[in-house]
Amino acid sequence: MENFVFQSPTRIIFGKGAEAEVGKETKKFTKKVLLHYGGQSIKKYGLYDKVIKSLKAENIDIFELGGVKPNPRLDLVYEGIKICRDNNIDFMLAVGGGSTIDSAKAIAVGVKYEGDVWDFYTSDKKAKKFLPVGVVLTIPAAGSESSNGSVITKEKGQLKKAYVDENIRPVFAILDPELTFTLPKEQTLNGISDIFAHGLERYFTNAQNVDFSDRLIEGAFKSLIKNTYIVLDKPLDYAARAEIMWIGLLIHNGVFGMGRIEDWGSHMIEHEISAIYDIAHGAGLSIIFPAWMQYVYKHDINRFAQFAVRVFGAETYYGDEERTALEGIKRLKNFFKEVGLPVSLEDVNIPETHLKEMSRKCAGSGEIGNFVKLDEKDVLSILKLAVKQ
Amino acid sequence: MENFVFQSPTRIIFGKGAEAEVGKETKKFTKKVLLHYGGQSIKKYGLYDKVIKSLKAENIDIFELGGVKPNPRLDLVYEGIKICRDNNIDFMLAVGGGSTIDSAKAIAVGVKYEGDVWDFYTSDKKAKKFLPVGVVLTIPAAGSESSNGSVITKEKGQLKKAYVDENIRPVFAILDPELTFTLPKEQTLNGISDIFAHGLERYFTNAQNVDFSDRLIEGAFKSLIKNTYIVLDKPLDYAARAEIMWIGLLIHNGVFGMGRIEDWGSHMIEHEISAIYDIAHGAGLSIIFPAWMQYVYKHDINRFAQFAVRVFGAETYYGDEERTALEGIKRLKNFFKEVGLPVSLEDVNIPETHLKEMSRKCAGSGEIGNFVKLDEKDVLSILKLAVKQ
Repeated sequence: MENFVFQSPTRIIFGKGAEAEVGKETKKFTKKVLLHYGGQSIKKYGLYDKVIKSLKAENIDIFELGGVKPNPRLDLVYEGIKICRDNNIDFMLAVGGGSTIDSAKAIAVGVKYEGDVWDFYTSDKKAKKFLPVGVVLTIPAAGSESSNGSVITKEKGQLKKAYVDENIRPVFAILDPELTFTLPKEQTLNGISDIFAHGLERYFTNAQNVDFSDRLIEGAFKSLIKNTYIVLDKPLDYAARAEIMWIGLLIHNGVFGMGRIEDWGSHMIEHEISAIYDIAHGAGLSIIFPAWMQYVYKHDINRFAQFAVRVFGAETYYGDEERTALEGIKRLKNFFKEVGLPVSLEDVNIPETHLKEMSRKCAGSGEIGNFVKLDEKDVLSILKLAVKQ
Repeated sequence: MENFVFQSPTRIIFGKGAEAEVGKETKKFTKKVLLHYGGQSIKKYGLYDKVIKSLKAENIDIFELGGVKPNPRLDLVYEGIKICRDNNIDFMLAVGGGSTIDSAKAIAVGVKYEGDVWDFYTSDKKAKKFLPVGVVLTIPAAGSESSNGSVITKEKGQLKKAYVDENIRPVFAILDPELTFTLPKEQTLNGISDIFAHGLERYFTNAQNVDFSDRLIEGAFKSLIKNTYIVLDKPLDYAARAEIMWIGLLIHNGVFGMGRIEDWGSHMIEHEISAIYDIAHGAGLSIIFPAWMQYVYKHDINRFAQFAVRVFGAETYYGDEERTALEGIKRLKNFFKEVGLPVSLEDVNIPETHLKEMSRKCAGSGEIGNFVKLDEKDVLSILKLAVKQ
């Protein structure tokens, strides 16, 4: 196990009707918020009204900025920063999924910074001052509700970049599984793929003697698989929605990665796809991961065999660990396909036109990943493996 | 899954040499501490000197109070409160195991309270002001390094009582697995029993649809069992000591119990034993748990069967779940016996003399536990089951 420092102070309020607490939780920090959200769905299903009511009951002044899109845009972040500065707003309230939360985090970092907030996403520079961010989560996927990361897209140049900083963990996260009942099937699945990927990035590690956290991640995978089938069958199953929501938070708040060396190569490859094609991050991940696994499994066949057996209940072929290992990759791919996630670029109609460009943007200026270090050529090979099923 | 609120802000600094950070971490809060510890072992093995050096390097004034014993005493808590008040000390630094941390928490709660700190341990009253508590952990067991609880013993009347309050979670916890290399075998084992028990109290629940947290706890059990055998064989195995230390913290910081209804009946029964006989808490737990399981398993045979199969790899007797369930209890008891933990009162030379008194003190004024509510008569039955192996 590697040395580590871990602190995740986000206050998690979880359960039916939890969104009614948003006013009380917000009031602990401020009397004035910028309410940040995406499209019309939070209005359509009544969440917007509930949030406003709860905030008003605590006499909190509300400014608003809607319009966050998947793969959230830098331009909207600039707009949010301006609104906060013009009105002395000192608290960001994100109501939505990962894109809205990431956008709120970017605004929270930018408000007190004299330069361009994009600096933090494109260099090692760290912010010094932050607005606190509160969250009402509507899509279990990104884990941003308690994580230390934010991913923003700059349309000009099709750049999608991440900023990681312990200080941007939200101060509270409100999770009501009922809010996810109305998610379209595709969005539910993209979320599940993202959650799975957050486990995989941590699972495939070169750190030795991490049996406990191996088992935590494996447990998350097993429960995620089980509950995916349940929600596909019964979208209004509270218990299954709750499990998925709780897994989505814990698998990405950092605790399962402690003592490990995480990978994150596949995420970086996916970012290049969705920067150009604007497909959902989760869809990109279910395409890239099986290809990545196929490309790197020989680096640690035993770990892949353990994954196959413990997560998917595959047979152990004693003396032929490679066969066991490959069985795990096959089963993960089959799981994605069976539930309706894409597993190839062809599945989402992405041609081979930009593979070289993506590889260059991804690894042209340095290797990515940790489990296996990948250069531009490796990334291209993985993308090629991902072309067809 | 039940609704829940969870927040565990303790900063965890984990790894080889982590104790060197104690000065820097402490300085974030204060320039003056009461350094609280137990006996001579921290001096014998050099930890005391390291801590003093790290604090002095940050110019922190150090007051000291040693002498914490297992089942920490209220009298020493009073002494600590007086020292803090007399010297305007605003920070408690606990260097030791669960007893030292619990004692430090009690002092931290008592300093700013005008009445008797024991009030909090014997009523529903909650403290309003607290000193922050920092920890350098030497014994993985109680989980007190990031938990919300403190257990104190009042010698007069042989009372052992708990205070639970989110505000008493330590602000930082420093965990260096190397500090546990010198633990005597018995103390290592008592710690492992305590860690196991913290999982069991959460595992046996009436909450439905808690598959994810079931698997987290099962994963902790499996890793704990595996690494117990390793440290018994090789007490200086860093990796195994590290796993046990990390399991000990996570299994009791609350996260594995979220959405569940926890039990805690066995802990309450054990407290009555160690209040009178002053045996180690862990030893009491390995005696009580198998008896408790035997007494209650019919309440949810499927859960006990799941425990047997998933944790101990027992055979599933399809159509005879009771046999599977009983196999799990047997294997847990065998595990305790095999590693050298007591599994009966006889094993620790406790006679039957006080069983009725313990039962009355434990449940005479109200039922205990949640999985199965236990009255005085039930507790007596469990204690009787615990007399012989």
